Amino acid sequence: MSFVLPAPAQPSVAVEGTEDRFPVRRVFCVGRNYAAHAREMGNDERDPPFFFTKPADALVGDRHTIPYPPQTKDLHHEVELVVAIGTGGTDIRAEDALSHVWGYAIGNDLTRRDLQAVAKKAGRPWDWGKAFDNSAICGPVHRGPHPLTGAITSRVNGEERQRGDLSEMIWSVPEIIAACSASVTLLPGDLIYTGTPAGVGALQRGDSCTCQIEGLGAITTIIAP
Amino acid sequence: MSFVLPAPAQPSVAVEGTEDRFPVRRVFCVGRNYAAHAREMGNDERDPPFFFTKPADALVGDRHTIPYPPQTKDLHHEVELVVAIGTGGTDIRAEDALSHVWGYAIGNDLTRRDLQAVAKKAGRPWDWGKAFDNSAICGPVHRGPHPLTGAITSRVNGEERQRGDLSEMIWSVPEIIAACSASVTLLPGDLIYTGTPAGVGALQRGDSCTCQIEGLGAITTIIAP
Repeated sequence: MSFVLPAPAQPSVAVEGTEDRFPVRRVFCVGRNYAAHAREMGNDERDPPFFFTKPADALVGDRHTIPYPPQTKDLHHEVELVVAIGTGGTDIRAEDALSHVWGYAIGNDLTRRDLQAVAKKAGRPWDWGKAFDNSAICGPVHRGPHPLTGAITSRVNGEERQRGDLSEMIWSVPEIIAACSASVTLLPGDLIYTGTPAGVGALQRGDSCTCQIEGLGAITTIIAP
Repeated sequence: MSFVLPAPAQPSVAVEGTEDRFPVRRVFCVGRNYAAHAREMGNDERDPPFFFTKPADALVGDRHTIPYPPQTKDLHHEVELVVAIGTGGTDIRAEDALSHVWGYAIGNDLTRRDLQAVAKKAGRPWDWGKAFDNSAICGPVHRGPHPLTGAITSRVNGEERQRGDLSEMIWSVPEIIAACSASVTLLPGDLIYTGTPAGVGALQRGDSCTCQIEGLGAITTIIAP
């Protein structure tokens, strides 16, 4: 058996403090998970969690310059805590969920908000709003413990845009893992983006966007001029 | 540099008549592409094409038995022509598109119709309706020429369910490749499911679902009892 085309390179993200890489299989994202952001998007914060996906090919690490994406005039930043799954499972119970986690990272769930808005209104898939080239920014994975509290912020060209605290999540990391694994089998190498706090906004060509989570440092993305 | 977890196996599909495999990077799907199916789903057939995605991990080949998926009471079959991309590109012109194709296969875009319906109504992502475990059935890739016409059918336990002709596609394969590559960069190893004809319906535990396209043979999927 051989492949008729070269197999694609294995997508991966950095591991904090090492030269090693965390191999990424799939990228899941929670829709709305901070009450103030749910309200700013016009939604009821008590809704159960829902998920969308991005291709692992869309991953971009810290300190990269990416092109402004096509077909949008409203590219948005969304800082998020990312959970890296080390041990898979189906129907994982919330009380067991943290034992499935390999580590945590800072993510930026880049969004073509105008395409997402059209999809939402028409009852259509969100993929072109969420799952485009370079849309999954993810910093190095920290092996450390589950960060339960701590400021989560984003800045554009030094000016603060988003601010929240991890303690404000509507659905906790264990609850998210439980909900996700009820609908698909989680596997080692899966990443889960856990939602963004209020203050999302547009990025322009030439902007520098820094996402920060207390205890996990900061990551920066440059939009090419 | 090394990986901190074993890298996942490369997803792939069979190549007709050989022991080789086609390595799969991503799976894109066109929403509605046969007028009669668009009408049965309550949509205007003149809408431009839209896309959703499945994880490459969800691929299942011919003659496999899969479990009835969780969280649904309305699993549907959708027979589709699948295009395997051999040469990538951005903003591929329709007149150049067929030179980017490596081959063609028969697919079955399994759908949790009830979860999809809830998502459509709420303006939410389709992922849990479309991108679940074992949801991307794909037979062997045929290296042959672009099938422009030919019957496309599905049968459940021998009884015909779907029937259409490839010539009834609203958007042609070249137009689909052009539209997809305008929103994301297509890459070697990408698959595109090109939509399903009318007659979609439910699969039950124990059912055998056979999808057939003239010139590409037939593939069968068994739902475990």
